[in-house]
Amino acid sequence: MAANTDAPADQESCYAVIFSSQRTTSDADGYGDMAETMVRLASEQAGFLGIESARSADGFGITVSYWNSREAIAIWRAHAEHVVAQRLGRERWYANYDLRIAKVERHIRFPKV
Amino acid sequence: MAANTDAPADQESCYAVIFSSQRTTSDADGYGDMAETMVRLASEQAGFLGIESARSADGFGITVSYWNSREAIAIWRAHAEHVVAQRLGRERWYANYDLRIAKVERHIRFPKV
Repeated sequence: MAANTDAPADQESCYAVIFSSQRTTSDADGYGDMAETMVRLASEQAGFLGIESARSADGFGITVSYWNSREAIAIWRAHAEHVVAQRLGRERWYANYDLRIAKVERHIRFPKV
Repeated sequence: MAANTDAPADQESCYAVIFSSQRTTSDADGYGDMAETMVRLASEQAGFLGIESARSADGFGITVSYWNSREAIAIWRAHAEHVVAQRLGRERWYANYDLRIAKVERHIRFPKV
Protein backbone atom coordinates (compact mmCIF):
# COMPACT_ATOMS: atom_id res chain seq x y z
CA MET A 1 0.00 0.00 0.00
CA ALA A 2 1.46 3.32 -1.03
CA ALA A 3 -0.26 6.54 -0.16
CA ASN A 4 0.80 10.13 -0.58
CA THR A 5 4.35 9.11 -1.24
CA ASP A 6 4.77 12.07 -3.55
CA ALA A 7 4.39 14.52 -0.74
CA PRO A 8 7.85 14.49 0.83
CA ALA A 9 9.83 15.39 -2.26
CA ASP A 10 9.62 19.13 -2.15
CA GLN A 11 9.72 19.56 1.58
CA GLU A 12 12.70 21.35 3.00
CA SER A 13 12.74 19.06 6.01
CA CYS A 14 11.50 15.48 5.97
CA TYR A 15 11.82 12.74 8.59
CA ALA A 16 11.08 9.06 8.04
CA VAL A 17 9.77 6.72 10.71
CA ILE A 18 10.83 3.25 9.62
CA PHE A 19 8.80 0.59 11.42
CA SER A 20 9.78 -2.98 10.58
CA SER A 21 7.93 -5.75 12.37
CA GLN A 22 7.31 -9.44 12.56
CA ARG A 23 3.68 -10.29 13.17
CA THR A 24 2.69 -12.93 15.66
CA THR A 25 0.80 -15.88 14.25
CA SER A 26 -1.29 -16.47 17.33
CA ASP A 27 -3.45 -13.38 17.69
CA ALA A 28 -4.76 -11.45 14.72
CA ASP A 29 -7.97 -10.20 16.36
CA GLY A 30 -8.52 -6.55 15.64
CA TYR A 31 -5.21 -5.98 13.89
CA GLY A 32 -6.55 -4.99 10.47
CA ASP A 33 -9.08 -2.53 11.84
CA MET A 34 -6.51 -1.00 14.18
CA ALA A 35 -3.93 -0.66 11.41
CA GLU A 36 -6.45 1.11 9.17
CA THR A 37 -7.50 3.42 11.99
CA MET A 38 -3.88 4.32 12.74
CA VAL A 39 -3.16 5.20 9.10
CA ARG A 40 -6.24 7.42 9.00
CA LEU A 41 -5.42 9.09 12.33
CA ALA A 42 -1.77 9.61 11.38
CA SER A 43 -2.78 11.25 8.11
CA GLU A 44 -4.84 13.78 10.05
CA GLN A 45 -1.92 14.90 12.22
CA ALA A 46 -0.10 18.18 11.68
CA GLY A 47 3.19 17.58 9.91
CA PHE A 48 2.18 14.29 8.31
CA LEU A 49 3.55 13.97 4.77
CA GLY A 50 2.81 10.39 3.69
CA ILE A 51 2.89 6.70 4.53
CA GLU A 52 3.74 3.51 2.69
CA SER A 53 3.59 -0.08 3.82
CA ALA A 54 4.36 -3.61 2.63
CA ARG A 55 4.01 -6.96 4.36
CA SER A 56 5.24 -10.27 3.00
CA ALA A 57 3.34 -13.53 3.28
CA ASP A 58 5.65 -14.65 6.12
CA GLY A 59 4.38 -11.80 8.31
CA PHE A 60 7.41 -9.52 8.06
CA GLY A 61 6.40 -5.97 7.22
CA ILE A 62 7.83 -2.49 6.81
CA THR A 63 5.85 0.72 7.20
CA VAL A 64 7.51 4.06 6.57
CA SER A 65 5.74 7.29 7.47
CA TYR A 66 7.04 10.74 6.58
CA TRP A 67 6.83 13.87 8.71
CA ASN A 68 8.02 17.44 8.48
CA SER A 69 9.66 17.55 11.93
CA ARG A 70 10.78 15.50 14.92
CA GLU A 71 8.20 17.38 16.96
CA ALA A 72 5.35 16.16 14.74
CA ILE A 73 6.59 12.58 15.22
CA ALA A 74 6.79 13.03 19.00
CA ILE A 75 3.24 14.36 19.14
CA TRP A 76 1.93 11.46 17.07
CA ARG A 77 3.76 8.91 19.22
CA ALA A 78 2.06 10.39 22.30
CA HIS A 79 -1.44 10.51 20.73
CA ALA A 80 -3.82 8.73 23.12
CA GLU A 81 -5.32 6.30 20.62
CA HIS A 82 -1.91 5.60 19.16
CA VAL A 83 -0.52 4.81 22.61
CA VAL A 84 -3.27 2.21 23.08
CA ALA A 85 -2.44 0.71 19.67
CA GLN A 86 1.26 0.57 20.56
CA ARG A 87 0.49 -1.32 23.77
CA LEU A 88 -1.78 -3.80 21.99
CA GLY A 89 0.92 -4.23 19.36
CA ARG A 90 3.46 -5.24 21.98
CA GLU A 91 0.98 -7.48 23.82
CA ARG A 92 -0.62 -9.23 20.85
CA TRP A 93 0.37 -8.45 17.32
CA TYR A 94 4.14 -8.06 17.06
CA ALA A 95 6.66 -10.73 17.94
CA ASN A 96 9.33 -8.07 17.53
CA TYR A 97 9.87 -4.73 15.85
CA ASP A 98 12.43 -2.06 15.11
CA LEU A 99 11.45 1.59 14.98
CA ARG A 100 13.91 4.07 13.55
CA ILE A 101 13.63 7.80 13.12
CA ALA A 102 15.76 9.14 10.27
CA LYS A 103 16.26 12.47 8.55
CA VAL A 104 15.78 12.25 4.79
CA GLU A 105 18.73 13.84 3.02
CA ARG A 106 18.06 12.82 -0.56
CA HIS A 107 15.09 11.61 -2.61
CA ILE A 108 15.26 10.11 -6.10
CA ARG A 109 12.22 9.04 -8.06
CA PHE A 110 11.58 6.86 -11.05
CA PRO A 111 10.11 7.84 -13.34
CA LYS A 112 11.29 11.37 -12.86
CA VAL A 113 8.48 13.87 -12.31
CA MET B 1 12.83 -11.11 4.99
CA ALA B 2 14.83 -9.56 7.79
CA ALA B 3 18.57 -9.99 7.94
CA ASN B 4 21.14 -8.50 10.23
CA THR B 5 18.70 -5.93 11.50
CA ASP B 6 20.40 -5.95 14.85
CA ALA B 7 23.58 -4.54 13.43
CA PRO B 8 22.77 -0.83 13.22
CA ALA B 9 21.87 -0.33 16.87
CA ASP B 10 25.26 0.30 18.32
CA GLN B 11 26.79 2.15 15.40
CA GLU B 12 27.68 5.76 15.96
CA SER B 13 26.61 6.66 12.43
CA CYS B 14 23.93 4.84 10.47
CA TYR B 15 22.27 5.69 7.18
CA ALA B 16 19.16 4.06 5.77
CA VAL B 17 18.46 3.62 2.06
CA ILE B 18 14.69 3.34 1.78
CA PHE B 19 13.71 1.82 -1.56
CA SER B 20 9.96 1.57 -2.14
CA SER B 21 8.83 0.17 -5.45
CA GLN B 22 5.88 -1.04 -7.45
CA ARG B 23 6.67 -4.14 -9.50
CA THR B 24 5.53 -4.43 -13.08
CA THR B 25 3.21 -7.31 -13.80
CA SER B 26 4.48 -7.89 -17.31
CA ASP B 27 8.08 -8.96 -16.92
CA ALA B 28 9.31 -11.03 -14.01
CA ASP B 29 12.11 -12.84 -15.85
CA GLY B 30 15.24 -12.90 -13.82
CA TYR B 31 13.96 -10.67 -11.03
CA GLY B 32 14.22 -13.15 -8.17
CA ASP B 33 17.74 -14.22 -9.03
CA MET B 34 18.87 -10.64 -9.47
CA ALA B 35 17.32 -9.54 -6.18
CA GLU B 36 19.09 -12.36 -4.34
CA THR B 37 22.39 -11.55 -6.01
CA MET B 38 22.07 -7.87 -5.08
CA VAL B 39 21.40 -8.68 -1.41
CA ARG B 40 24.44 -10.95 -1.34
CA LEU B 41 26.67 -8.41 -3.10
CA ALA B 42 25.47 -5.54 -0.91
CA SER B 43 26.22 -7.54 2.22
CA GLU B 44 29.82 -7.95 1.06
CA GLN B 45 30.40 -4.20 0.69
CA ALA B 46 32.40 -2.18 3.17
CA GLY B 47 30.11 -0.22 5.46
CA PHE B 48 27.10 -2.50 5.00
CA LEU B 49 25.17 -2.95 8.28
CA GLY B 50 21.99 -4.82 7.35
CA ILE B 51 19.01 -5.12 5.03
CA GLU B 52 15.33 -5.88 5.42
CA SER B 53 12.64 -6.26 2.83
CA ALA B 54 8.90 -6.83 2.50
CA ARG B 55 6.65 -7.06 -0.55
CA SER B 56 2.89 -7.28 -0.50
CA ALA B 57 0.83 -9.48 -2.77
CA ASP B 58 -0.09 -6.43 -4.89
CA GLY B 59 3.56 -5.98 -5.88
CA PHE B 60 4.34 -2.98 -3.71
CA GLY B 61 7.55 -3.50 -1.74
CA ILE B 62 9.91 -1.72 0.62
CA THR B 63 13.56 -2.60 1.08
CA VAL B 64 15.67 -0.74 3.63
CA SER B 65 19.41 -1.23 3.73
CA TYR B 66 21.65 0.24 6.45
CA TRP B 67 25.13 1.65 6.00
CA ASN B 68 27.74 3.32 8.15
CA SER B 69 28.32 6.30 5.83
CA ARG B 70 27.09 8.19 2.78
CA GLU B 71 30.35 7.22 1.08
CA ALA B 72 29.61 3.49 1.48
CA ILE B 73 26.20 4.06 -0.12
CA ALA B 74 27.73 6.00 -3.02
CA ILE B 75 30.26 3.24 -3.69
CA TRP B 76 27.54 0.58 -3.66
CA ARG B 77 25.34 2.63 -6.01
CA ALA B 78 28.24 2.80 -8.47
CA HIS B 79 29.14 -0.92 -8.21
CA ALA B 80 29.24 -2.29 -11.78
CA GLU B 81 26.85 -5.22 -11.26
CA HIS B 82 24.51 -3.04 -9.25
CA VAL B 83 24.42 -0.45 -12.04
CA VAL B 84 23.32 -3.18 -14.47
CA ALA B 85 20.62 -4.28 -12.02
CA GLN B 86 19.42 -0.71 -11.64
CA ARG B 87 19.09 -0.34 -15.41
CA LEU B 88 17.19 -3.62 -15.74
CA GLY B 89 14.97 -2.53 -12.87
CA ARG B 90 13.98 0.64 -14.70
CA GLU B 91 13.55 -1.15 -18.02
CA ARG B 92 11.65 -4.22 -16.84
CA TRP B 93 10.83 -4.78 -13.22
CA TYR B 94 9.70 -1.54 -11.62
CA ALA B 95 6.73 0.51 -12.72
CA ASN B 96 7.93 3.20 -10.34
CA TYR B 97 10.10 3.61 -7.29
CA ASP B 98 11.24 6.07 -4.66
CA LEU B 99 14.75 5.92 -3.24
CA ARG B 100 15.52 7.93 -0.15
CA ILE B 101 18.74 8.27 1.78
CA ALA B 102 18.20 9.14 5.43
CA LYS B 103 20.38 9.50 8.51
CA VAL B 104 19.16 7.37 11.42
CA GLU B 105 18.89 9.49 14.54
CA ARG B 106 17.11 7.10 16.87
CA HIS B 107 16.50 3.35 17.10
CA ILE B 108 14.00 1.65 19.41
CA ARG B 109 13.57 -2.11 19.59
CA PHE B 110 10.95 -4.46 20.91
CA PRO B 111 11.61 -6.56 22.80
CA LYS B 112 14.41 -4.58 24.37
CA VAL B 113 17.78 -6.24 24.12
